[in-house]
Amino acid sequence: MSDKKRIAIIGAGFAGLAAARALKNADAEIFLIDRRNYHLFQPLLYQVATAALSPAQIAQPIRTIVRKQRNCTVVLGNVTGIDKEQHRIYGAKGELAYDYLIVATGATHAYFGNEAWSDYAPGLKSIEDATAIRQRILSAFERAEIAVTEQEQQACLTFVIIGGGPTGVELAGAIAELAHHTLRGEFRRINPANARVILAEGGDRLLKPFTPRLSARAAADLAKLGVEVRTGLAVQECTREGVRLGEEWIAARTILWAAGVKASPAAEWLQLSGDRAGRIAVQPDLTVEQHPDIFVIGDTAAVQNPNGTPVPGLAPAAMQQGNYAASVILARLQGKPAPAAFVYKDYGTMATIGRGKAVAQFPWTTCSGLLAWWLWGIVHLMPLVGFRNRIVVACDWLWSYLTHARGVRLITVSPGTESEI
Amino acid sequence: MSDKKRIAIIGAGFAGLAAARALKNADAEIFLIDRRNYHLFQPLLYQVATAALSPAQIAQPIRTIVRKQRNCTVVLGNVTGIDKEQHRIYGAKGELAYDYLIVATGATHAYFGNEAWSDYAPGLKSIEDATAIRQRILSAFERAEIAVTEQEQQACLTFVIIGGGPTGVELAGAIAELAHHTLRGEFRRINPANARVILAEGGDRLLKPFTPRLSARAAADLAKLGVEVRTGLAVQECTREGVRLGEEWIAARTILWAAGVKASPAAEWLQLSGDRAGRIAVQPDLTVEQHPDIFVIGDTAAVQNPNGTPVPGLAPAAMQQGNYAASVILARLQGKPAPAAFVYKDYGTMATIGRGKAVAQFPWTTCSGLLAWWLWGIVHLMPLVGFRNRIVVACDWLWSYLTHARGVRLITVSPGTESEI
Repeated sequence: MSDKKRIAIIGAGFAGLAAARALKNADAEIFLIDRRNYHLFQPLLYQVATAALSPAQIAQPIRTIVRKQRNCTVVLGNVTGIDKEQHRIYGAKGELAYDYLIVATGATHAYFGNEAWSDYAPGLKSIEDATAIRQRILSAFERAEIAVTEQEQQACLTFVIIGGGPTGVELAGAIAELAHHTLRGEFRRINPANARVILAEGGDRLLKPFTPRLSARAAADLAKLGVEVRTGLAVQECTREGVRLGEEWIAARTILWAAGVKASPAAEWLQLSGDRAGRIAVQPDLTVEQHPDIFVIGDTAAVQNPNGTPVPGLAPAAMQQGNYAASVILARLQGKPAPAAFVYKDYGTMATIGRGKAVAQFPWTTCSGLLAWWLWGIVHLMPLVGFRNRIVVACDWLWSYLTHARGVRLITVSPGTESEI
Repeated sequence: MSDKKRIAIIGAGFAGLAAARALKNADAEIFLIDRRNYHLFQPLLYQVATAALSPAQIAQPIRTIVRKQRNCTVVLGNVTGIDKEQHRIYGAKGELAYDYLIVATGATHAYFGNEAWSDYAPGLKSIEDATAIRQRILSAFERAEIAVTEQEQQACLTFVIIGGGPTGVELAGAIAELAHHTLRGEFRRINPANARVILAEGGDRLLKPFTPRLSARAAADLAKLGVEVRTGLAVQECTREGVRLGEEWIAARTILWAAGVKASPAAEWLQLSGDRAGRIAVQPDLTVEQHPDIFVIGDTAAVQNPNGTPVPGLAPAAMQQGNYAASVILARLQGKPAPAAFVYKDYGTMATIGRGKAVAQFPWTTCSGLLAWWLWGIVHLMPLVGFRNRIVVACDWLWSYLTHARGVRLITVSPGTESEI
């Protein structure tokens, strides 16, 4: 074992990967640990769920990304615990000693006490979630085609998306486009365009972090696509048969959950108490109180700017935190003074609604419609890891734009199970 | 219900789809039944299994393919039985009456009495098979990287492919390339190039249907890629730990089965006795004895040319049989004389071995090496259903050719299970 300092990074999402890359010239041994062998570009995951992109187009092997970074070792494995005092990480297949630890394990969907709903209203965080949702959406049209009663047919053609944040808006818009355009003419007994797509938001407007004007624009754009937007109604019940929104019962065979996330169980590993969403409070330098060798970043952390405003759970924020944590460690390795407290630099945020429709909010201005949509496309294409993926996704988008086609309409099933059709 | 004749086609593979398309102008109602919602281009399935292509690139929704064929209804469902006398097909969700029936349900892998081996030596017939094999291959390198003993490491880096037909040859070549080129430099403890890839064939040479000279060429090409070719040795045992080839025990964590296929259970449905491989004997017009309204085509049938030679189980043969069955039905619908007996027209057959290496055998000549490889690429690109897939696959191949990269290196897991790493 060399006498170099050992930096362990748990999680190769936006935050962890940024930290590893920012440490590329560090005279240290870096261990980048993930339970998946790929880095996932989550902002485009809804496009996998709605049959527009293949999983591999938004995922890149972690080993390939850091292949040339000789100080970085990729470890594929499940972390089961951390010993803060002994400076050790425990996994199913062994343990790892560290001098510095960066925890960047991300978030998962949360049902806030209604965990039983997860069977009927799956959420979207992983590739497996996305292909399972794709299977549900495509199967719903197939089940409608062979439905015996009209009620059954209508329930199969009713899609309820719960949660009016960017993911909910994107899913609703994409399903509406699938029904109205992509599937046109492909069924003989049903008209896919008769599908009802309902987007339910408990708050009083969609896209809360955006300005009210952009929220209204998003609602209007969704309405044009045929999406019914319902705001101010809480979900009372979710079952296999449908969903109760406020007082109203809606028979629906496909319910998708985009209503909330909670941090991964890192707080448990570290024996710290998280906030309501499981996020760990961090110091201005993103370390944990009393443990200056442990950094928590990305969606796992509840980060505040020095002025007290919360840092949003967005990819750019996660990457900035990764870069910042790396800079703190580099300064310590080199005996330099610590950098100033972390400040999130907001370059803007955007959400896409559908073909030619998006909203974008920058610190200095806002925009919507076709211009925002093009901006959204460029902004989401550029950071796609891997030159080839960028080209391939761009070609797919162009093709879909020209033809309304969606190239990945596969109903795959898990080994050992049969399709429910 | 209209008084048009009802033609039911079970299976939308090469044979069934060709039949449906050839009936596009028939004044009849066509029902194209499949348990998957997509047509699969099986000849490229090994590229999905070896991380070169995404599933969607070789699969196209059946509904999209026949969207404009208004006389064709796609039925997604599992067939459970057929009543030959009542002219009815039974499925999990209903039944369907037919006047003409075309059975084109394909083949599955066969272990010929050693079904227990299927857990340790999976075969390659479906997309689910391919992604499961991809997971095994990629995980093997990951497990080698974290192996504690040298024996364990070597067993993880040993790949045995059983069966020296085209699929076995293609898998062996692709795994060797993955180990020697694609993964180069990505691990820190192992050298992927130390992987052993063993191709075991029970007969005395690879690629039996080809000329001995081409078989020798394939073996030499594989050796150049680093594949150990073992012929004349039967598999005696398959376990989680390895495989016994003749007398020799080979410790190997990844074993793949490409040694045999058997027809789908259509013979049972029809209460007919199949041959050893489960295939149904058919008349010269591809109908079943005593049932001139039932056609059996593709890998489900044991078809002979009028001169008694067997028709091979290849995609072009399946398509020719589909077209032929359609022509017989068309003639009957139009009261015209029946076409002459089915004759397989052999335009040649080819197998690819690796980058720049393939063998091709035509009725009038043979070729190998780079020329055969280019021919193979063109021949397999042209029939890929969907203009977009053709372009995308061509781009992917060009990219791989230039960079040795494989774009789909995802270890995905089934919902509810965890990766074994």
